[in-house]
Amino acid sequence: MKHNRDAAPYSSFERIFNPRKLAIVGVTTTGFGFGRGILHSILAMGYDGEIYPVNPKGGECNGIPIYREIDDIPGDIDFAIIALPAGLFPDALEKCRQKNAAGAEILSAGFKETGTPEGIELEARVREIASRGIRVIGPNCFGIYCPESGITLLPGPELSRKSGPVAFLSQSGGMTIDFAHLGQWMGIHFSKMISFGNGADLRETEMLRYLGDDPLTGVIAMYVEGVHNGREFFSTLSEVSSKKPVILLKGGLSDAGQRAVASHTASLGGSRTIWESVLRQCNAIQASDLNDIADTCLAFCTLLRRPYHGIALVGGGGALGVAAADIAENFGLSIPALRDDIQSQIESLLPRPGSSAANPVDVANPYVAPEILNKVLTLAAHDSAIDIIILVQLLYHYKALLRMAGAARLRDIVPTVQLIDAVDSAIKECGKPVVMVLPNPKQDTNSIEIEEIIREVREECIQRGIPVYADMANSIRAIGNVSRYCARRESRSACCASAAQ
Amino acid sequence: MKHNRDAAPYSSFERIFNPRKLAIVGVTTTGFGFGRGILHSILAMGYDGEIYPVNPKGGECNGIPIYREIDDIPGDIDFAIIALPAGLFPDALEKCRQKNAAGAEILSAGFKETGTPEGIELEARVREIASRGIRVIGPNCFGIYCPESGITLLPGPELSRKSGPVAFLSQSGGMTIDFAHLGQWMGIHFSKMISFGNGADLRETEMLRYLGDDPLTGVIAMYVEGVHNGREFFSTLSEVSSKKPVILLKGGLSDAGQRAVASHTASLGGSRTIWESVLRQCNAIQASDLNDIADTCLAFCTLLRRPYHGIALVGGGGALGVAAADIAENFGLSIPALRDDIQSQIESLLPRPGSSAANPVDVANPYVAPEILNKVLTLAAHDSAIDIIILVQLLYHYKALLRMAGAARLRDIVPTVQLIDAVDSAIKECGKPVVMVLPNPKQDTNSIEIEEIIREVREECIQRGIPVYADMANSIRAIGNVSRYCARRESRSACCASAAQ
Repeated sequence: MKHNRDAAPYSSFERIFNPRKLAIVGVTTTGFGFGRGILHSILAMGYDGEIYPVNPKGGECNGIPIYREIDDIPGDIDFAIIALPAGLFPDALEKCRQKNAAGAEILSAGFKETGTPEGIELEARVREIASRGIRVIGPNCFGIYCPESGITLLPGPELSRKSGPVAFLSQSGGMTIDFAHLGQWMGIHFSKMISFGNGADLRETEMLRYLGDDPLTGVIAMYVEGVHNGREFFSTLSEVSSKKPVILLKGGLSDAGQRAVASHTASLGGSRTIWESVLRQCNAIQASDLNDIADTCLAFCTLLRRPYHGIALVGGGGALGVAAADIAENFGLSIPALRDDIQSQIESLLPRPGSSAANPVDVANPYVAPEILNKVLTLAAHDSAIDIIILVQLLYHYKALLRMAGAARLRDIVPTVQLIDAVDSAIKECGKPVVMVLPNPKQDTNSIEIEEIIREVREECIQRGIPVYADMANSIRAIGNVSRYCARRESRSACCASAAQ
Repeated sequence: MKHNRDAAPYSSFERIFNPRKLAIVGVTTTGFGFGRGILHSILAMGYDGEIYPVNPKGGECNGIPIYREIDDIPGDIDFAIIALPAGLFPDALEKCRQKNAAGAEILSAGFKETGTPEGIELEARVREIASRGIRVIGPNCFGIYCPESGITLLPGPELSRKSGPVAFLSQSGGMTIDFAHLGQWMGIHFSKMISFGNGADLRETEMLRYLGDDPLTGVIAMYVEGVHNGREFFSTLSEVSSKKPVILLKGGLSDAGQRAVASHTASLGGSRTIWESVLRQCNAIQASDLNDIADTCLAFCTLLRRPYHGIALVGGGGALGVAAADIAENFGLSIPALRDDIQSQIESLLPRPGSSAANPVDVANPYVAPEILNKVLTLAAHDSAIDIIILVQLLYHYKALLRMAGAARLRDIVPTVQLIDAVDSAIKECGKPVVMVLPNPKQDTNSIEIEEIIREVREECIQRGIPVYADMANSIRAIGNVSRYCARRESRSACCASAAQ
């Protein structure tokens, strides 16, 4: 299939995501308006290209002179961020086009989403100007985040400058900024995030195709409420999914949700059944919420991309194993009993009675020493039926030990470094991935130290490439998503290969 | 229907949950064994009855003399906690029975769950002794938690002494202790928790019947993997559900989960379809995981028990509204558009453009002043189609404002007290419940202050009876569970009333 890429040569996208000359139109010298806000965010990010704030009143902001007119900016610009009342847009956008800008993002609302004739008319004019050569992101959005260049979302002064393989394409600005923050502590790094709001010009299909070809993007996540051209979108989705995983959250799958979508982005909803079957046909991964998106991205970023079958679950409590088995089955995964000789070896290491070496491996108490856990992980990995191991650690239980151990601080008794080392060396020894699960059921105001310790352990695990989840069920769902995607891709490749013979 | 209550007169239960004379059998003077651990936990809880630790070696522990034999304890005992190697149980249990103990909990493992002939035989002997008058909780469990008396779970030195209406009955000790901790910060207080492990004697049906009649218990939550006598259990469940809500999590609904159940507690599983339809017939609330149990208990404890229909959702972002509509529909709830005149009044209060007063009410930015939120909440509540309001606040966004506002600490700019006051006075003014949702997508090591602030706000809200959730979807699910339970109970009462005419 040949796509008409002339309408959006990728060189435009490069100038949009990595502008060297950036205009910010609508920057006031005081207050908390969008223009001053985004200028502040971009400066805080350390963007090092040229910035040209524009406001008819002139003056300066953060030591940068403000231009009175877009025309006054010397030479061409690459990209413009426009934060003006809706009525002033067409003129500003047209001037940016004349300045040869590759694109502009329109942060402000007041367009088609208002449902008023004026709003609809304004959005049509934006589209008309865009058709003459400048690509538009928005209006009514949080814009673009590109860690490589330092361009960031409207409320994004605190985002990371570290690039990574995940791209996010979203009809929701709120979800985009939430995901950017989630990524920071979960260990997910982004190539690009695009909050495209009303999507007057650039939309899901074209951006998806671009991200599919973007060498910096290895995983694509999307939030869509509806698509403009279903046939074209699904054909693109199928094509891109054959190259890299696409995780898609469809908002508005219920009747009520579809009505909400109609009033939110006027998108064509489509029934749950249709979406589910089309996504499966495309081998796109359907997410159930933003946490599912983030969890799955983390798994794709940290795990070997292959089908998984057997999970070893190491932790405490039989109910954990029952829940794990329930969830695993939904994804074609299993928690198989370990080989008898391996069980015997594990049994000899664990406190008796109360422990179980079958799988899940119930270590019987939460204080089992990291060096024992290391041996248990390594032994479990020796079983050829085991592809991956999940280690659940409830660090909060150490608080109960505090008084009995006569210690003052939790840090003095939780063997955090030893735990991470134990997991890390088990992974290196056995060559199979270990996923850590660190739930925190103890979130009262007097237990903040537990939260601190969990975050520190997570940060160090991330440094070493070990994924950490807060919830066992969610970790299995994420592994299942990776596994199912890879299995389907393999079977499709095999089909293609045999068809070609 | 007449139950045979002679086998377990409720007076026994009173002596079990509120013992005045408590034996702890198997207390060592050093180490971290179960006996010393539970003694320590019970002392930490401030239990003020008589404690009689027992160990053949004598000595003392925490200043309390240790008796060499159970027989040496002066007079009768009410309850015994036994933490001995499995083989020593029958003798100890028999001696407790001779001391006229109403019950005993057996913490240790090594019984039927081992699958060995010795373990099965030991458990049979426990059952035989129990049949002669002493009620047994366990073995292989975490025991009983009763805030009123100060009896606590094995790893439970830190639990609350404040009693409340929620009872929990569980085949999983791990889930019991996790729930006890969840309850502490979520604002759920317990009448009784019973982790009954293998359930050699006391089990789901009898305990459920007792809790159904317990005046201190207003909500019952359960985790079961299987039941001994299905017909009797479901008839009891139906009877109790007609009096108070019963929230039930069934572990092992998948094929794989059923196999895990079989090896964990040797329980009869039963298919997903059967369980779902029977629970619906009984008007029991089916939970999907422990968080669902806790969320639903919180809703039952804080909301008026009635069917709900229309939700007003106040927060930021259109995607939130779409997701809310999707979830609400599953529970027969809706997010209806507000009355036109109310929309106009709300519109006049909110920043324009970008906000929406339709419902969900999108307040357009996260810094809208609490006094404005108060007015929005009150206005929304004036709509007769609105039964309940959910307010979503993303406090983490204040961090982006920190530098621009020139403030040093987040506490200096987040209007926490004003926010709580705004919600509190809206509830008092409008007489409709407001549920707070405080998500935290920013959990990096440098953002611990956000977590602290969220916890402080939550604690203060709980003090004032305002439920706080971390997730919007979960809050709707919890409201939906309350609503559906109450609607079904009303329609059943109506049926009974008309049948009686």
